[in-house]
Amino acid sequence: MSELFSCKICEHVWPPQDHYIGDLGLTKAYLFDDQFFAGWTVLILQVHRTELFQLTREERMGLIEEISLVGEALTEIFEVKKINSELLGNQTPHIHWHVVPRLHSDPDPLSPVWCVSHEPVHLSPKLLKERLSLFRGSLGIS
Amino acid sequence: MSELFSCKICEHVWPPQDHYIGDLGLTKAYLFDDQFFAGWTVLILQVHRTELFQLTREERMGLIEEISLVGEALTEIFEVKKINSELLGNQTPHIHWHVVPRLHSDPDPLSPVWCVSHEPVHLSPKLLKERLSLFRGSLGIS
Repeated sequence: MSELFSCKICEHVWPPQDHYIGDLGLTKAYLFDDQFFAGWTVLILQVHRTELFQLTREERMGLIEEISLVGEALTEIFEVKKINSELLGNQTPHIHWHVVPRLHSDPDPLSPVWCVSHEPVHLSPKLLKERLSLFRGSLGIS
Repeated sequence: MSELFSCKICEHVWPPQDHYIGDLGLTKAYLFDDQFFAGWTVLILQVHRTELFQLTREERMGLIEEISLVGEALTEIFEVKKINSELLGNQTPHIHWHVVPRLHSDPDPLSPVWCVSHEPVHLSPKLLKERLSLFRGSLGIS
């Protein structure tokens, strides 16, 4: 990493380390800070790249498998109506995918999560531990 | 398609047929109706599926290649700062990816496109034809 280069993912500033779920291979999975949308997960590419076309074909293939796997695990855990999978990077270009289960109980199911006004939900240490454990179980991560 | 089943993509109600760019293999590419974000493209999966994990591994692999290809083509055409790639489906579950080039001239570069208030931009027939032609050229579609 160059001295002129700053990336809050590479510098481990974000996501919060206590939200770490596990290593999926190409990505590391974390629960998103704000759990208002229960189960919102972020997959962080382990190398610093910013666009899909900068990856090799094999890396893209691995990446979509991990996104799919997480979506399927979320569907096993929650009452999911639809999975949203988003690669934005407007604020943090390092490739990270938001995988968000939109539950049957969603307060605004037709809108993108970014447009749903709400108070952020930060889990208590106990609830965070439970949710991480549930997720690891579904993903087969010890 | 069952009589009880209604999908505006399968029924060719959306996207508008005059915005058709071309057939990429697994998906068909269209310019999004609203071109406020110039180059916003939608990739429509040619079969009706709603979640990534319902596809075969080969289909997922093909899909991510087409998303990457379109992102790269957009980067050749426009002054792109970041590509956004989003699979939502909250309103129309049939798998379709939004591939949105966020240009250096973007009015609100840090926000998801869904949060940027604006008047929709509908291209004139002449401009639409030009943009489709430019895109086909970059994608190598005749």
